[in-house]
Amino acid sequence: MAEFEGGNGSKSKKPTRKLTWALLAQPALEKARKSSQTQILATIFFAIFVIYALFNAFPVGSTTTPESDSDENSGFDMTVNFASATQPCSAAIATADSSSSTIKVYMYDLPIRFTYGVIAARSASRGGGTPENLTALSYPGHQHMGEWFLFLDMNRPQSDRVGSPVTRVMNPEEADLFYVPFFSSLSQLVSTSPQADGSEAVYSDEETQEALVEWLEGQEYWHRNGGRDHVFTAADPKSLLHVMDKIKNSVLLVVGFGRLRGDQGSLVKDVVVPYPHRLRTYEGDLGLQNRPTLLFFMGARFRKEEGRIRDVLFQVLESERDAIIKHGVQSTENRREASNGMHTSKFCLNPVGDTSTSCRLFDSIVSLCVPVIVSDTIEVPFEDTIDYRKIAIFVESAAAVKPGYLMSMLRAIPPEKIVEYQREMLKVRRYFQYGVSNGAVDEIWRQVTKKLPLIKLMSNRDKRLVIKESDCSCVCANPAANRTP
Amino acid sequence: MAEFEGGNGSKSKKPTRKLTWALLAQPALEKARKSSQTQILATIFFAIFVIYALFNAFPVGSTTTPESDSDENSGFDMTVNFASATQPCSAAIATADSSSSTIKVYMYDLPIRFTYGVIAARSASRGGGTPENLTALSYPGHQHMGEWFLFLDMNRPQSDRVGSPVTRVMNPEEADLFYVPFFSSLSQLVSTSPQADGSEAVYSDEETQEALVEWLEGQEYWHRNGGRDHVFTAADPKSLLHVMDKIKNSVLLVVGFGRLRGDQGSLVKDVVVPYPHRLRTYEGDLGLQNRPTLLFFMGARFRKEEGRIRDVLFQVLESERDAIIKHGVQSTENRREASNGMHTSKFCLNPVGDTSTSCRLFDSIVSLCVPVIVSDTIEVPFEDTIDYRKIAIFVESAAAVKPGYLMSMLRAIPPEKIVEYQREMLKVRRYFQYGVSNGAVDEIWRQVTKKLPLIKLMSNRDKRLVIKESDCSCVCANPAANRTP
Repeated sequence: MAEFEGGNGSKSKKPTRKLTWALLAQPALEKARKSSQTQILATIFFAIFVIYALFNAFPVGSTTTPESDSDENSGFDMTVNFASATQPCSAAIATADSSSSTIKVYMYDLPIRFTYGVIAARSASRGGGTPENLTALSYPGHQHMGEWFLFLDMNRPQSDRVGSPVTRVMNPEEADLFYVPFFSSLSQLVSTSPQADGSEAVYSDEETQEALVEWLEGQEYWHRNGGRDHVFTAADPKSLLHVMDKIKNSVLLVVGFGRLRGDQGSLVKDVVVPYPHRLRTYEGDLGLQNRPTLLFFMGARFRKEEGRIRDVLFQVLESERDAIIKHGVQSTENRREASNGMHTSKFCLNPVGDTSTSCRLFDSIVSLCVPVIVSDTIEVPFEDTIDYRKIAIFVESAAAVKPGYLMSMLRAIPPEKIVEYQREMLKVRRYFQYGVSNGAVDEIWRQVTKKLPLIKLMSNRDKRLVIKESDCSCVCANPAANRTP
Repeated sequence: MAEFEGGNGSKSKKPTRKLTWALLAQPALEKARKSSQTQILATIFFAIFVIYALFNAFPVGSTTTPESDSDENSGFDMTVNFASATQPCSAAIATADSSSSTIKVYMYDLPIRFTYGVIAARSASRGGGTPENLTALSYPGHQHMGEWFLFLDMNRPQSDRVGSPVTRVMNPEEADLFYVPFFSSLSQLVSTSPQADGSEAVYSDEETQEALVEWLEGQEYWHRNGGRDHVFTAADPKSLLHVMDKIKNSVLLVVGFGRLRGDQGSLVKDVVVPYPHRLRTYEGDLGLQNRPTLLFFMGARFRKEEGRIRDVLFQVLESERDAIIKHGVQSTENRREASNGMHTSKFCLNPVGDTSTSCRLFDSIVSLCVPVIVSDTIEVPFEDTIDYRKIAIFVESAAAVKPGYLMSMLRAIPPEKIVEYQREMLKVRRYFQYGVSNGAVDEIWRQVTKKLPLIKLMSNRDKRLVIKESDCSCVCANPAANRTP
């Protein structure tokens, strides 16, 4: 929990660092001015360097941050939620990143019903009180709470947004991108969860979505590029669906495309983001000495549609001596048991569920338990940056359900190969950690900035097209092109 | 013709500039070392700056280069084809751009039949001789000769590739991208042009395309990412069509997508490049004083399919008193006349022809003659960077053929608006000039580098997909979303 509640006492003087350099350099500059012609030249060049340094960026290095785990259903207080590890080098980066060269994001100051109002609705539905100041409310923990971390990140002072690829601007006219911080997943959750007394939810997600779009329709910048330069979190696969056709031009931060049509969501336009992991991060050494179980799974046995494979996998696997395959639902106690299971297993089964993805993948990774993915249409986050074949095993459903196949395959993998998987997971683990510097939030924004050329192209093109028919530009998968195993 | 034959005598000492700065700064550094603690600190910071400067980049500024025009059907000698304007600032850029942070391109050393061999075939078909050393041959001028300028650019020493967003590497293992410098457009031209004696062409473009793919099939890196990280020029809309399905994963440099299926070419995967302009660049002042003609067009009256609109436009426009609408075919004499026409007109008609694009657009722009584009499905280069509504007028075909419509519309545009168009054309003209620094070639590579995240994503994804069916990810036009005129 370190990233949520700890470490904020050690703030370094980040924004002034480069300025200090320039001032310290002044005496040398004075001395040089009085000496030979060469020295005058040197002075001029030095001055150029100083000016250059004041306006330009150091390359962004990879800063390591303390590993930690997300909380379980407790609330998160906005003021203490980001780790601020002491990073003297990153301080310069932060200053640099605020320069004109980074991508500028304007976060809408939404009416409170779309942010803290949703938290209040959740609190009320659980029988909690509503404080006078809604911003004092804590966001409840759940598997699609990435929207909260993005909101927190944008609300931090720019000087604290160490290493972020985007700068928040307060003037929309300066912005390259517009962030709409509606808590769409929480809104979906509140409207579908029964009240504390068992009665039906009184909060309507659909009404809230409609109100949001109505509000956006009144915004000048929403119309300027047909919404293409706007960014929404839509992590819960059911979130924002009611108004999806009205916001489909925008960049959506999703966990997959299961419930979206091809013209609503795509790898080209949108960003696949990780679920915030729900289990404890494994802090021990690499290796197999404390991992006696070959294959571990704990979760719901019965799922709809594609997810029906889970029951078949249970039948095939549950009697295997070195596998632990258990039915279990989300609870604090079960998460503790699942953590222990993942931390003591070599491989973790990641079967398709109600959708092709689940937070189990990210729980497996932070547990250094090699994910065995049985989900034929899964999309995974940041795939331009991460080669998932190095950290996971993908098994076609048709093969996975053959009796004996999965276990024989896993038993044949040599120990050193498993450790290699673990080593690779350790390398990329930061990408799956929300609420830490240089973690998931920064990478999400980096991914969004990579969409900018296409956003600009399509925006300019929309405006000059003389025929009002829609046409689509695509890139297609070509699995057959893979000649190397 | 300055960029082809002149200006190469004034080479500045580009690669060593930053090193020189460091040496000049040394005396000041020495002095500071002997003085107070503050000065020692300054020295340390200065040294950091110097080291930093040696390894890092200045922001790429926009360097202006002499304007000039492409030659007309004369050959181009490789050794003198790039303007080397004296650019002391860009020298630093060149050094910086060679650093590890730029994108690395490996250009295949293709068998000579795919490069100079095609020039030799062209020469032979015209009754010219074939020298023993084929690389002594000059590339013949034609409207799809961009492939030659890309080849030239890659063949220059890295120190001369001022401001390029890509670095050529000689080790394919280091490469992010692979360039296949087949002269695909010239190959198409040779095979479809009659011999000098009037007999049919003996050279086969199709055979050459097949041989190219066969050669690529023997290359390790062609298979590594299913060709996705490979770049081909396919400027002539008929070039490479015979093997298109085998190279469709790759980045294609095209003038449009007219003859490509949606799964072969798209705005998402490929780069729309400008035609090298064929007419003289207008070097005079902005304004209308020397532009008595309102609307100018000179070109073929009769075209197939969509291009049949040309004849209708002729009928509607040819009797207008302030319009010059003339039939004419490509020839040196006609190009001279067309240059004069474009330089003395306010607007230049750019109707659809055999395809939706033509080099006329780029001739119009370098002539500062506002393009009036009547081509409903045209794609234009670098549209993420250039807002074409600022430099051109797009008119739907259905409207353009209404008697009186076009001329009334143009007559109503106030002079200051026309000058504004001219000013904007001047700003972006460099993007349409091949063979100059910071011109079309650099921008093409910049556009290709923007594809890299998607190339990497799709490459990684192809390899881990368990189902061998293809699926497509798209972004769709939404002209209706354009609320501002």
